[in-house]
Amino acid sequence: MRVMGVDPGLTRCGLGVVDAASSRAVSLVAFGTATTPETESLDRRLLRVAEVVGEWIDRYAPDAVAVERVFARRDVGTVSGTMQASGVAMVEAARRGVDVALHTPTEVKAAVTGSGTAPKDQVGRMVARLLRLAETPRPPDAADALALAICHAWRPAALSPRGQAATPAQKAWVEASRAAAKRGRRGWAPV
Amino acid sequence: MRVMGVDPGLTRCGLGVVDAASSRAVSLVAFGTATTPETESLDRRLLRVAEVVGEWIDRYAPDAVAVERVFARRDVGTVSGTMQASGVAMVEAARRGVDVALHTPTEVKAAVTGSGTAPKDQVGRMVARLLRLAETPRPPDAADALALAICHAWRPAALSPRGQAATPAQKAWVEASRAAAKRGRRGWAPV
Repeated sequence: MRVMGVDPGLTRCGLGVVDAASSRAVSLVAFGTATTPETESLDRRLLRVAEVVGEWIDRYAPDAVAVERVFARRDVGTVSGTMQASGVAMVEAARRGVDVALHTPTEVKAAVTGSGTAPKDQVGRMVARLLRLAETPRPPDAADALALAICHAWRPAALSPRGQAATPAQKAWVEASRAAAKRGRRGWAPV
Repeated sequence: MRVMGVDPGLTRCGLGVVDAASSRAVSLVAFGTATTPETESLDRRLLRVAEVVGEWIDRYAPDAVAVERVFARRDVGTVSGTMQASGVAMVEAARRGVDVALHTPTEVKAAVTGSGTAPKDQVGRMVARLLRLAETPRPPDAADALALAICHAWRPAALSPRGQAATPAQKAWVEASRAAAKRGRRGWAPV
């Protein structure tokens, strides 16, 4: 299956596409970013994100689009643009009839490194290793988008019909996912 | 000038269109809501909001779209869907080359009632009076969207070339606008 990951952002929106085989092997299709200037108005910046995400979906025809679930914490000021960019990206996928999934940063880290608290550079290194790249994809937003795509391709439901976690990384994935769901019920703000 | 107001929301997104003459007279063109079922997935709900907002812009051809500026406070859980809906609405306007403006709830209340702290039902009653309607437009989301549209049509810059506040309501509008801008700098979260 082909998955496109979107690390939503207004200044830099990370995009990454991978192909995944049932054997857990993943291969790189494309990565990059949609960037918008801070001098531009909010509506034009969001439109630009929508256009680039739409072009990528049209060009790479993913089976699913995985978007990072944005949490609103204290730094709500910067989060609102990120939330809006995530909503805009979801609409572009829905408009084209492509499935949309949301994954938390913790789920993504657990999926690619085995630890939901792995530092950012470790995620980038694992993405490079898993995709057999000589270097970590840059910028980090693009690496994060690839990690999201891998996370979605490797989600337990996609690999096991009974939703069982087969590997340590998958077990960590499931635990992180459950923890995120619990936090959601306690009043966190999943997008 | 013709202005379309959007009171963003996922369950119920208020829409209202008014025509404004230079004499401060405003008249009703249309009001209504875009509703999406809570049982639907987030991406499909946002797509529905985008489609209805787009249809309204195409049908009524407003000169500007005024969207309520969403603030993230404690109830971030419900606010994230509202934020995403506002972003999606902005994109539909930008896609069609229509100007987008954001106004805070305080600005809107001040514009139509003269008080930035007016209760919701007072805003609805003033909207009905200003548009010479026998009844308050329902649901409240639609009345709020009409108030937004009136607020934008009456913004000081639209009426006075030098941006001066001519009436008590306009003075309240300018004060509320400045207060909102200050709060923004102190870390509030304007969308």
